[in-house]
Amino acid sequence: MRVDPTPSAAAVPHVVIVGGGFAGLAAARQLRRAPVRITLVDRRNHHLFQPLLYQVATAALNPGDIAYPIRSVLRSQQNARTILGRVTGIDLRQRQVQLADEVMPFDYLLLATGATHSYFGQDGWEAWAPGLKTIEDALEIRRRVLSAFEAAERQTDPAMLPATLTFVVVGAGPTGVELAGALSEIGRQTVAKDFRSFDPRLLRVVLVEGADRVLPPYAARLSAKAEQQLRRLGVEVRTGAKVTRIDASGVWLGDEHIAARTVLWAAGVAASPLGASLGVPTDRAGRVKVQPDLSVPGHPNVFIAGDLMHFEQQGLAVPGVAPAALQAGRAAARNIAARVAGAATRPFRYRDKGSLATIGRAKAVGQIGRVQFTGFFAWWVWWIVHIAYLIGFRNRIAVMMGWAWQYFAFARGARLITGRAWEPGRAPEAPAVPPVPQAPRTPEPMLR
Amino acid sequence: MRVDPTPSAAAVPHVVIVGGGFAGLAAARQLRRAPVRITLVDRRNHHLFQPLLYQVATAALNPGDIAYPIRSVLRSQQNARTILGRVTGIDLRQRQVQLADEVMPFDYLLLATGATHSYFGQDGWEAWAPGLKTIEDALEIRRRVLSAFEAAERQTDPAMLPATLTFVVVGAGPTGVELAGALSEIGRQTVAKDFRSFDPRLLRVVLVEGADRVLPPYAARLSAKAEQQLRRLGVEVRTGAKVTRIDASGVWLGDEHIAARTVLWAAGVAASPLGASLGVPTDRAGRVKVQPDLSVPGHPNVFIAGDLMHFEQQGLAVPGVAPAALQAGRAAARNIAARVAGAATRPFRYRDKGSLATIGRAKAVGQIGRVQFTGFFAWWVWWIVHIAYLIGFRNRIAVMMGWAWQYFAFARGARLITGRAWEPGRAPEAPAVPPVPQAPRTPEPMLR
Repeated sequence: MRVDPTPSAAAVPHVVIVGGGFAGLAAARQLRRAPVRITLVDRRNHHLFQPLLYQVATAALNPGDIAYPIRSVLRSQQNARTILGRVTGIDLRQRQVQLADEVMPFDYLLLATGATHSYFGQDGWEAWAPGLKTIEDALEIRRRVLSAFEAAERQTDPAMLPATLTFVVVGAGPTGVELAGALSEIGRQTVAKDFRSFDPRLLRVVLVEGADRVLPPYAARLSAKAEQQLRRLGVEVRTGAKVTRIDASGVWLGDEHIAARTVLWAAGVAASPLGASLGVPTDRAGRVKVQPDLSVPGHPNVFIAGDLMHFEQQGLAVPGVAPAALQAGRAAARNIAARVAGAATRPFRYRDKGSLATIGRAKAVGQIGRVQFTGFFAWWVWWIVHIAYLIGFRNRIAVMMGWAWQYFAFARGARLITGRAWEPGRAPEAPAVPPVPQAPRTPEPMLR
Repeated sequence: MRVDPTPSAAAVPHVVIVGGGFAGLAAARQLRRAPVRITLVDRRNHHLFQPLLYQVATAALNPGDIAYPIRSVLRSQQNARTILGRVTGIDLRQRQVQLADEVMPFDYLLLATGATHSYFGQDGWEAWAPGLKTIEDALEIRRRVLSAFEAAERQTDPAMLPATLTFVVVGAGPTGVELAGALSEIGRQTVAKDFRSFDPRLLRVVLVEGADRVLPPYAARLSAKAEQQLRRLGVEVRTGAKVTRIDASGVWLGDEHIAARTVLWAAGVAASPLGASLGVPTDRAGRVKVQPDLSVPGHPNVFIAGDLMHFEQQGLAVPGVAPAALQAGRAAARNIAARVAGAATRPFRYRDKGSLATIGRAKAVGQIGRVQFTGFFAWWVWWIVHIAYLIGFRNRIAVMMGWAWQYFAFARGARLITGRAWEPGRAPEAPAVPPVPQAPRTPEPMLR
């Protein structure tokens, strides 16, 4: 009873898209009227709105608010079908995509498998400092954060309390800044009302960045403003600081030890290994260096878009952000359609729509063109832009409700620990390294 | 910096409540003005609205919609604190509750640790037929159900397709009836629009019940009506059928084999093992046979409420439903307050508020007092009662929105597979037992 979507399937070129993120979905939709049959393969059944993932991690949103079944997005697109499957390899010569249990021939291929976090070769750090790329990552971070407060509530040894209530975020790009700001808000506004046994002023959020300022790709003025806003929220900002070790006891910056139960990773990024498996030139992060039309050198029927692509424009690599992925996905799709029609491909041109990073309640920084803005207005812009991009009417409503609730009530509605409460692998009475004595801290980080 | 909630803590009797379900939370709230200090211990940080858990399993609701942090429920109750911890034992003589890392003395104890599912000693069945008691259970069931449709979409062997699309629900109590009805609706309304490769009419939902009718505790007329509504939804109802084996290939009813990739368990219930550990008489399911005032025989300062309690009234055991747990929790709390005040305890009296089971969109059966009702009206009553009981304003709104959306759009908004797509432990080409040939089925179960 297997029904083939198009009766004349063999006559129509087969476009395989691997990855249902921003680039892959945008490409599939762009090809909706092209004379092709599309198979979109993803190992997850949902598209994830990654820019809001940190809100799931910090218990402001439900997973279902920012994820949407890929199958439903493409429901009405007759020339596309969706396959849940893991691609294990690509044979460029035979024009085949290998799945765990199937070999899928293609006429055109778009690889859009994105990136994950990287620990700069220190893979042992991952256990102590989870990154944030998937729904499961977000729920794991949420579990650790909420479990830390639960552990503090039960902590009977006052000497252990500072480490229990210290949160270190490594990396001050947009995700790190958003996480640090949200953690500080959770601790000071929400948790302070719910817990009895510990003094919420002991809460410490440390944001560590190797560069000399937060949000390094942003304009210097915006970085300064963001740092100021973070400090106002009580975040300790440590720029020019290199993490040399992470373990159960916390984080080392050279000789300095920050005793912390909870460490979150928002630093390195590595491209999906499928890129390197193609045997074509990649950059240090494993991104494929594409041709101007986004095709793979020597393989004009194979295209790359999104975080897996390394594309330089005016000497700068296009950043790994959602608008770039959307634009590249559409451009690659247009070039596939051109090739199908026997026309010439056109070079990709990235249009910078601007940058936005939110820091906390009514706090953000942004830049659109030459206009820089900060504070409440930037936060409003950030809010509207993100809502507008969220796929699906229902998700939009649910997210708006969650945010409105959070804004007015300072509450976080999704504070569930699922799975077991996380316990770091150390005995509370005998930490691997004794917590450092709390240095006297300047008073401003903990303004109430 | 440990701050004790009440300065004169030692002078005030300490009430320990184990379990933050309906009974435990109701008891804590009932004691809000009593001269006691309360510690509520739960191994989860959230109260779960179990009557709606099947809606999370069937992707209609998000986990956050039906769960709420216990800590927040008790936030403003000055005499109560909440502890996230696992109780490993109870020493009735020393009046101590043992946690994994702490011994907690009590003056009064309320055990309300509830029940979980039981496989009648066939623990090996659990891997093939998950039950539904926790958020994780619900997400696991959701994962299996949605993964089955994904597998069907990719199934290349037509002979395997019927087993891939067969869902067996074991047990036709309210949970089983709700699951079977929802599965049938998902398959026929939502999934049919999203998938391309298989004929949705191959979908088969089988509801197996050992008793001679569905919803055995309900009036016979309501059981008949429920069965009729289930059949109208396309569910195959198999009453008087005993499951003799469950494995990777499906379910056996004696000699009859139902080939099914997905089997869900909604049959047996076993009380929390803490009941049996007390060394006092229990019933077959491990529930503690309590005194009329809900105390444990020989231990007038120890009380039991909720699904862990075996309480007979007019020769019938009080059922394991939420209203009974709420009533018993409050009654136990009143008796604890009476004992603190030096007054006599009073016997518990269960007031049957009626029964309600929903079967699908605008389909339900119910009974309040002597009034029985079915169909759309019963569904409305069910809807209103469940909303009214849901704790927390935000949850109420989110659930109503989810349902309204589902009702009008026949869509299910929370269709995420988290974790990996579930793969049963069998090679698709070599099932442990070959699927039985599909018997010709009567046409009415698959009306569109």
